[in-house]
Amino acid sequence: MQKCVYFFAKDEADGSSKMRNLLGGKGADLAEMANLGIRVPPGFTISTEVCTYYNEKGEYPAGLDGQIKENLKKLETATGKKFGDADNPLLVSVRSGARVSMPGMMDTVLNLGLTDKSVEGIVRRVTNPRFAFDSYRRLLQMFGNVVLKIPGEKFEETIDRKKEEKDVKDDIELTIDDLKQLIEEFKRIVKEETGDDFPQDAVKQLAMAIEAVFNSWNNKRAIEYRRIHNIPNHWGTAVNVQVMVFGNMGSDSGTGVGFTRDPATGEKKMYGEYLLNAQGEDVVAGIRTPRPISRLKDEMPEVYEELEGITQRLEKHYRDIQDFEFTIEKGTLYILQTRSGKRTAQAAVKVAHDMVKEGLISKKKAILRIDAAQIEKLLHPRIDPDARVEVLAKGLPASPGAAAGIVVFDADSAVRFVNKGEKVILVRRETSPEDIHGMAVAQGILTSRGGMTSHAAVVARGMGKPCIAGCEAIKVDEAKAMFTVNGVVFKEGDYITIDGSLGQVIKGQVSTIEPKLGEEFKELLGWADEVRVMGVRANADTPDDARIAREMGAEGIGLCRTEHMFFGEERLPYVQRMILSESDDKRRKALEKLEPIQKEDFKGILKEMQGLPVIIRLLDPPLHEFLPNHDELLVEITKLKVQNGDEKEIEKKEKLLRRIEDLRETNPMLGHRGCRLGITFPEIYHMQVRAIFEAAAELTREGVNVLPEVMIPLVMEDKEFSLLKEDVVGIAKEVMEKEGVDFKYKVGTMIELPRAALCADKIAKVADFFSFGTNDLTQTTFGFSRDDAEGKFLHVYLEKKILRDDPFQVLDQEGVGQLVAMGTERGKKANPNLEVGICGEHGGEPSSVKFCYYNGLDYVSCSPYRVPIARIAAAQAKLEQE
Amino acid sequence: MQKCVYFFAKDEADGSSKMRNLLGGKGADLAEMANLGIRVPPGFTISTEVCTYYNEKGEYPAGLDGQIKENLKKLETATGKKFGDADNPLLVSVRSGARVSMPGMMDTVLNLGLTDKSVEGIVRRVTNPRFAFDSYRRLLQMFGNVVLKIPGEKFEETIDRKKEEKDVKDDIELTIDDLKQLIEEFKRIVKEETGDDFPQDAVKQLAMAIEAVFNSWNNKRAIEYRRIHNIPNHWGTAVNVQVMVFGNMGSDSGTGVGFTRDPATGEKKMYGEYLLNAQGEDVVAGIRTPRPISRLKDEMPEVYEELEGITQRLEKHYRDIQDFEFTIEKGTLYILQTRSGKRTAQAAVKVAHDMVKEGLISKKKAILRIDAAQIEKLLHPRIDPDARVEVLAKGLPASPGAAAGIVVFDADSAVRFVNKGEKVILVRRETSPEDIHGMAVAQGILTSRGGMTSHAAVVARGMGKPCIAGCEAIKVDEAKAMFTVNGVVFKEGDYITIDGSLGQVIKGQVSTIEPKLGEEFKELLGWADEVRVMGVRANADTPDDARIAREMGAEGIGLCRTEHMFFGEERLPYVQRMILSESDDKRRKALEKLEPIQKEDFKGILKEMQGLPVIIRLLDPPLHEFLPNHDELLVEITKLKVQNGDEKEIEKKEKLLRRIEDLRETNPMLGHRGCRLGITFPEIYHMQVRAIFEAAAELTREGVNVLPEVMIPLVMEDKEFSLLKEDVVGIAKEVMEKEGVDFKYKVGTMIELPRAALCADKIAKVADFFSFGTNDLTQTTFGFSRDDAEGKFLHVYLEKKILRDDPFQVLDQEGVGQLVAMGTERGKKANPNLEVGICGEHGGEPSSVKFCYYNGLDYVSCSPYRVPIARIAAAQAKLEQE
Repeated sequence: MQKCVYFFAKDEADGSSKMRNLLGGKGADLAEMANLGIRVPPGFTISTEVCTYYNEKGEYPAGLDGQIKENLKKLETATGKKFGDADNPLLVSVRSGARVSMPGMMDTVLNLGLTDKSVEGIVRRVTNPRFAFDSYRRLLQMFGNVVLKIPGEKFEETIDRKKEEKDVKDDIELTIDDLKQLIEEFKRIVKEETGDDFPQDAVKQLAMAIEAVFNSWNNKRAIEYRRIHNIPNHWGTAVNVQVMVFGNMGSDSGTGVGFTRDPATGEKKMYGEYLLNAQGEDVVAGIRTPRPISRLKDEMPEVYEELEGITQRLEKHYRDIQDFEFTIEKGTLYILQTRSGKRTAQAAVKVAHDMVKEGLISKKKAILRIDAAQIEKLLHPRIDPDARVEVLAKGLPASPGAAAGIVVFDADSAVRFVNKGEKVILVRRETSPEDIHGMAVAQGILTSRGGMTSHAAVVARGMGKPCIAGCEAIKVDEAKAMFTVNGVVFKEGDYITIDGSLGQVIKGQVSTIEPKLGEEFKELLGWADEVRVMGVRANADTPDDARIAREMGAEGIGLCRTEHMFFGEERLPYVQRMILSESDDKRRKALEKLEPIQKEDFKGILKEMQGLPVIIRLLDPPLHEFLPNHDELLVEITKLKVQNGDEKEIEKKEKLLRRIEDLRETNPMLGHRGCRLGITFPEIYHMQVRAIFEAAAELTREGVNVLPEVMIPLVMEDKEFSLLKEDVVGIAKEVMEKEGVDFKYKVGTMIELPRAALCADKIAKVADFFSFGTNDLTQTTFGFSRDDAEGKFLHVYLEKKILRDDPFQVLDQEGVGQLVAMGTERGKKANPNLEVGICGEHGGEPSSVKFCYYNGLDYVSCSPYRVPIARIAAAQAKLEQE
Repeated sequence: MQKCVYFFAKDEADGSSKMRNLLGGKGADLAEMANLGIRVPPGFTISTEVCTYYNEKGEYPAGLDGQIKENLKKLETATGKKFGDADNPLLVSVRSGARVSMPGMMDTVLNLGLTDKSVEGIVRRVTNPRFAFDSYRRLLQMFGNVVLKIPGEKFEETIDRKKEEKDVKDDIELTIDDLKQLIEEFKRIVKEETGDDFPQDAVKQLAMAIEAVFNSWNNKRAIEYRRIHNIPNHWGTAVNVQVMVFGNMGSDSGTGVGFTRDPATGEKKMYGEYLLNAQGEDVVAGIRTPRPISRLKDEMPEVYEELEGITQRLEKHYRDIQDFEFTIEKGTLYILQTRSGKRTAQAAVKVAHDMVKEGLISKKKAILRIDAAQIEKLLHPRIDPDARVEVLAKGLPASPGAAAGIVVFDADSAVRFVNKGEKVILVRRETSPEDIHGMAVAQGILTSRGGMTSHAAVVARGMGKPCIAGCEAIKVDEAKAMFTVNGVVFKEGDYITIDGSLGQVIKGQVSTIEPKLGEEFKELLGWADEVRVMGVRANADTPDDARIAREMGAEGIGLCRTEHMFFGEERLPYVQRMILSESDDKRRKALEKLEPIQKEDFKGILKEMQGLPVIIRLLDPPLHEFLPNHDELLVEITKLKVQNGDEKEIEKKEKLLRRIEDLRETNPMLGHRGCRLGITFPEIYHMQVRAIFEAAAELTREGVNVLPEVMIPLVMEDKEFSLLKEDVVGIAKEVMEKEGVDFKYKVGTMIELPRAALCADKIAKVADFFSFGTNDLTQTTFGFSRDDAEGKFLHVYLEKKILRDDPFQVLDQEGVGQLVAMGTERGKKANPNLEVGICGEHGGEPSSVKFCYYNGLDYVSCSPYRVPIARIAAAQAKLEQE
């Protein structure tokens, strides 16, 4: 006969933690603790195979009943109590437990074994008889609902009526008599709804409860949960039947929770709280304040010592912080549960580091222990966790970090206040190139419109400043220099704080904490570097960014965007003149003014990154992004006309408006941008390429080792790339000859359109490197405009679980990932020397970094502060494969 | 020794038309004619292998010289003339001739064998001695330029100086003495430029000319041509050396060209023209008017009879219309060339049809003979080819067909004039939903802005009216009801004609010809239907379109767009009310008004297509497309404010403006549209689905056989589709139960996003059909917004040959095609019952139709008038595979 039931009690368990598939997570862990000699409330686990059998055949495997009875006997022996006994009854809980946790999805029944008679037996044994009746009341309610499928409202309404009648607010205020009346009413409900009496036979109760839990594997919400989390239906759940222990049997009883180390700081000392003469739910009810666990040492020194010994043993056994629950029943300590403890990013780093030093885990294990996504929190200024905050509104978390300052509503005011020594937050409906000088001096930016790729968001991320975009709850009136939120008015000079990581606008000036790489963290990152083979670069547009990138451990620049350089105060006029030129000649003249400025930009970055590669992307955004706002100009002209304004002025402005309208596009994301600018206005790229190579030449002469790599954006076809590459190579040759120097360089392309990935073999034959621009690739593969999707429908897709993650945060491996894999494979096959990386924002997201490693990419590139995340994730990817 | 040279003369040829690879096209065809016993000027072909050998080794294969000499001898024997002879010189031409025609890419030298001495021999033998000197002058010039690489200007300038000196305009006016002087000057130029005299040795001339022609295989333009047309460099060219014959040796000589059937109508009679005592270039010079070929029957009856016999033999041999050239030298007829004749669409159909009836070709051959793209011309109203037209400007050919009418500048005026019995062309900067009633009554639409998917273009194509969009040369002033083009003003009431197939705006009222399927064409289409296996459906949005589609042979509706139904005059107010609703409840009320109207729409179409499937696509465009124009409203509000207008009015309009701004998107193409509307506003799709099924139910009760198929647009993920499908299935069940009827239906999806194609396997498991929306799929795969690309950069991509075709016209097989192939394969593998079609505009483009067949699609769907094209192309695809 097949073994269906697995017993566990201190020092005696049929199972172990290796038997998760058979016993479920909970069953396996209880068995493991029992094997370690830890006192758990004894019990037994009915295996998942029984569930599978039952689901298939509609009946239990032969012999199950006998095995259950046998194990019940063992429980009676272990506890000295008797199941269904009127005097000293054994009470048990019945809980589900699948291979992986499905919290709250399946059913649980507590206090089984209570009957009209046995409840009196309990009353005689506990200090608080009210508890016995309440437990029976709960059994009736839970059993009625879960097992007998009686709608929960029936019971709830009865309780509500009773409370009304007694004029009390909380259940806890009901007296023993009230509870007794409720018990009678509940029994009546059961009879009414099912036609049968509530079973006064404990064995029958148990059998019915077990069947109900097995059936709950196929309830609607469990099926839905499995669909979303890709859990196979055939796994089934185990059922755990476990003796109930009580912490409210007097002052020698109690209950508590704790951690083996401080989950906030990682400090090595037991941490937690407890209550004497109480059950878990008393803690939840919040009537009594729990005590810090150190007090237990005084109150029950032996128990404390035992607890400390056990939990340290558990930590050593599991080699990780443990989060444990315990109950003391009449001086006897039971461990109810232990699991790996949740911790802050700071604690995670410290614990992983310390455990290596303590010899508890290997360096590799320490790396794998870090939740790479979580450590981002350590890498930006953040709101002081101890500060009191009042959140005014929530917008899109467009650029991470926190900052406080007085609100200003235009760029000039920003500069004025900053010159007076104030810190400012620039608040606008949306920003435009004309606001750049204000953004440059502000601590952070808040806009009421625009998405994750709006001007404000992109520029702020580029500048490394916190930004909240699309915060629609805020009504900005720029003319009156004020905004209102939920009826409250904020005027120029009022303080706010923004948390760009969470998208929260906070009232007043809240203190923030600066990020730094602590020594322990640096050591950990060093271990990660020893392991990983995939490179990590940074996206950086300025020498300052480049410096931070190096500090964070970047091995090069994977993406230096040149358009941000065009927005500078001294440059924008030339850029606009260049765009508005009506002849090639005038355009060239404007470009001549820009060239020396660009050269200095490139010198700065190349010098900062000496010895490391720097990928510089040629101009990418559509030209109209550099021009004044269309609607504002239209309003201005209309006003001038109605008021019979100066005709020359009107004419000039109308000409500008027409040019803006000419350049305006229906779908700029898919429009005249990227290398399409290079194809149609070759002189723009020529200027940039010349500036790059002249910078490289001058530095080479100064003895600086430069490795410039020119990247052509938005390529969709090899012929397009070849045409543009020809010019780059020509200019490189020309500059090197003219300057009499020689340096190495590469010419490559972004792969950010599906067609480029599909035709990667052809492009690879002529390119030195690929860099996957997964932001745009995600937009085109999904047909999602990020600006529009994030404000308008993406949240619904996430709520309805059509998408598990925002594909702009986490690389969509199923769809976009196919193109990344295909592009890499085809590219490397066609050109074995091809260097392949990724420079979309996914380059700093751990699961995406791992995907890149598994698909053969040579490096990932991300914003400087995410470089440590990528270093960890890249190391983890390697280790997970081993 | 390897055979390098292939002789040909009447009845005696070494080669044949099967030896194209070896002899090139021209050499093989000349050999073929010779074999048929047709008198061609004798000659010989030096094979392509010689070219390849020469290119590889830089020298000729051993023995080539001997073979050339031997063949020269044969020419001398055949003609009785002697190469290089002073008295009766043999003159030859040297021409290139590759496997495929590369017109004008490589070099030719005529009149080789002329020298200072032999020119005098010719003079003595021709009636027109001027011709001899002119020939010699030409030889010097051609040889100097082609063989000796002397810049052509050197010779041209000398001629120009001579003409100036003599004060004449045309070369032909130069006298014999002038020509003699030019000959001397040309010889001087040769000496000056090369240091050597012009070779007076005919054999040397020939050798140099042959080498020059071989070298011309690798000139720049030939290389570029091969790159563009994918012709392998290793093919090489053959060289044809052929005796020169002269049609200007008196009144018993002449020259002409002709067709075996009328190339305009296809009528079976010899067609052409000729000149007596003339060379080909006399015809070109245009001084004498050629005579119709029928006159030759009177002038030289025997020659005419021979010509007719020969050309009929050629037609029978090649089984196609022949386009031939001939020369009569002293009563002897030479055929210089014959090739398959270019013909109009009308002639192509008639000839293919007639030749089947004549037993000349099989039905299959007849189908293959049709240029499917060309016959589109037969399927729209077109400008009368005999009419004189003055083209004012050119815009985008946004919707094919031609129409004439008076210009009007707003929708209301359009209606007013039409009510008076006028035909109108609606001219706007761009159109919006508010113009629909004007578009509906207009003959055609002309806009100065917008692309191929602008509102005007899409609506016009939907209505089947000609439309020119983005005609920027036209400056429209709607307020003054006028437009100017190149300084000329057109006011309301002036006539224009538009040709939407060519994008031409034509002055005045030009007559047009209505399309019809002639009986011969219908018969041909019937033969195509016998052959093809892939289905052909039509895109049709109205019962009228559906009727035309059936007439054109559509086997169902592949795409019925429902958004056009929303634009109707009676509907738009409800649509706008629905969009502007602030509550779900108000939205539902507006939808309730629309439902009965939609039901009638669907009844009309389903009834028209009874017995055939009708795929109805749920609402696709973003909602803001149905709202008033933003900029106009902004101007209006600004004016009202400056002029202190009514506050209530301003407030109302500002509210509307804010809603429009809320809905406005950065990239609407990638925004909140398609099934994203169905996910976020389920009630819209519910209304449409209910209208479809209620229409189907009512018709079923009336005994009409309906086959509705509900198509969900812009799907990117199986979960998204499943959610929406669930609702469709639920409503179908509900309606069938309520109405007490039963009918079949399908639920499927567009595949128009790269991700949908990549994840086709998963989607196919839950979908009944796929329809590739290749318009949007092209936009997302390329990252091209059609509206922006076509106006701003696509033309540059076509000019620079980065793209061979406009990917919105011809399916990009290399990139987008991969996704179509992948989506089909994965889809059918996952669901063998999956029906797969295409409904993008490519469904009516022949090469794309063939691609669909080869990749296993079940049907193509295109606009009704392109259905015949698709029927032909689908049959051709099948035949080409056999």
